[in-house]
Amino acid sequence: MEGDRLYGLGACDMKGGLAAQLAAALEVEDPAVDVSFVFYPCEEVAAEHNGLKHLFEVRPDLVQGDVALLGEPTSAAIEAGCQGTVRVKALYRGQRAHTARPWKGQNAIHRLAPVLERLSNYDGLRPNVDGCEYREAMQAVYVDAGVAGNVVPDEAILTVNYRYAPDKDSTQAEQHVAELLEDCDELIVDDHAPASRPALQHPLLQTLISRNQLAVKAKLGWTDVARFSAHGIPASNFGSGDPSIAHTRDEYVERNEIERVYSALLDLLKNGVI
Amino acid sequence: MEGDRLYGLGACDMKGGLAAQLAAALEVEDPAVDVSFVFYPCEEVAAEHNGLKHLFEVRPDLVQGDVALLGEPTSAAIEAGCQGTVRVKALYRGQRAHTARPWKGQNAIHRLAPVLERLSNYDGLRPNVDGCEYREAMQAVYVDAGVAGNVVPDEAILTVNYRYAPDKDSTQAEQHVAELLEDCDELIVDDHAPASRPALQHPLLQTLISRNQLAVKAKLGWTDVARFSAHGIPASNFGSGDPSIAHTRDEYVERNEIERVYSALLDLLKNGVI
Repeated sequence: MEGDRLYGLGACDMKGGLAAQLAAALEVEDPAVDVSFVFYPCEEVAAEHNGLKHLFEVRPDLVQGDVALLGEPTSAAIEAGCQGTVRVKALYRGQRAHTARPWKGQNAIHRLAPVLERLSNYDGLRPNVDGCEYREAMQAVYVDAGVAGNVVPDEAILTVNYRYAPDKDSTQAEQHVAELLEDCDELIVDDHAPASRPALQHPLLQTLISRNQLAVKAKLGWTDVARFSAHGIPASNFGSGDPSIAHTRDEYVERNEIERVYSALLDLLKNGVI
Repeated sequence: MEGDRLYGLGACDMKGGLAAQLAAALEVEDPAVDVSFVFYPCEEVAAEHNGLKHLFEVRPDLVQGDVALLGEPTSAAIEAGCQGTVRVKALYRGQRAHTARPWKGQNAIHRLAPVLERLSNYDGLRPNVDGCEYREAMQAVYVDAGVAGNVVPDEAILTVNYRYAPDKDSTQAEQHVAELLEDCDELIVDDHAPASRPALQHPLLQTLISRNQLAVKAKLGWTDVARFSAHGIPASNFGSGDPSIAHTRDEYVERNEIERVYSALLDLLKNGVI
């Protein structure tokens, strides 16, 4: 603790939100709304270990609801929905040759010039969805090619990550990446976590926002709200902590942000939607 | 053996040339020219193991001479001199960021677009040196970058191999690569084997060519002739076998090519320069 600031790994992402939820759960014995608190492990690691994914598989009845609120760091704002993220591997083929006689082959690395030019100039859309401005992005995250120091390489693999707004569905997102990578020989979808729409029109979220004068913005990163959305449950991120310092060495959370989240949850539990 | 064709790994590169030299050495007891036969191991692997390199280091007196002839596959032609080869690693730096917010960083992979465009359009010079047309080439041989599937990478390493004609020295060759890779942040010379001029004006080579009506062309690959040239000894490749099938599964050599190399060497040993 330094004054009203608590330092520690995970303080921001997302133990502050967890503290606010736990405190509210202990405080209200007879809530005005039907509420379930769900705490689960492995939200940060590979999807296969995600506790929420397992719950939806083995006990979907426990995670049903009208609206889900997740304690991700949002600086006590409503960060609505989340962008989708798809990662693809694009294979560019060539033909091997000796580097002393490259005109007998085709260099797969050289073939990457135009696609890297397109990625370099890519200007992500900024669609407004239900009043939230999202911001798309398309980035090369890996490139790998090479056979030997004297060989014209016959294959290059470019891995691209596309972050897309929730006005696109999974199919549209994959189509968009495929168009940008149209000159590759093979395209493999390596990983795909779909987007989630804001769902701000829901009365419960409206109540939360208006009674607490919460700021509302788009969530650019992917979060577990998408797992609820995929099961038809509107969801939003609402937690303490500055999301830009999540996972940093000097991660911290401010007391007043935890208290704002706590009191907004408490108000909803005590008074419900009026 | 199939007819006059001998199949076998190394038959072309370069046991045919070796056979012609051994046969000539055994045939002529009292040669008209002062001749040394040098047979050494590990010509094909890393430079540190090269037997000729070791000989020049420990017994330079054994490898002195007016002219050196190497039994590399040339289809019984004189392949004059050899091109130089330099391999460099070019580092392109960026700044890490989350792929959901790439505008906070700079993608090092995207920075490769213009240099790959230049490599793709590179039109190698074809200088004529002492009557031989060489053909230069510049090829990306490795590219490597990537931190994680959701991270804008902050470093990309592009490895480039430049094959250059013997009208350039080592310094000029490295300068030329550096100009093409001018936008990188750091350039490391990974390996460099200099070129070797043709030396066709030497009376011994003139005799060999004219008395046997040998075809003369430029050697595009790098060979050990450059080790002799580096020690001030004119050198040329002269052996049996089609160089384009060297190192292939069905490598072979034709009897008449071994015989042509053998008889040309025999004539030189018996009659000398007239």
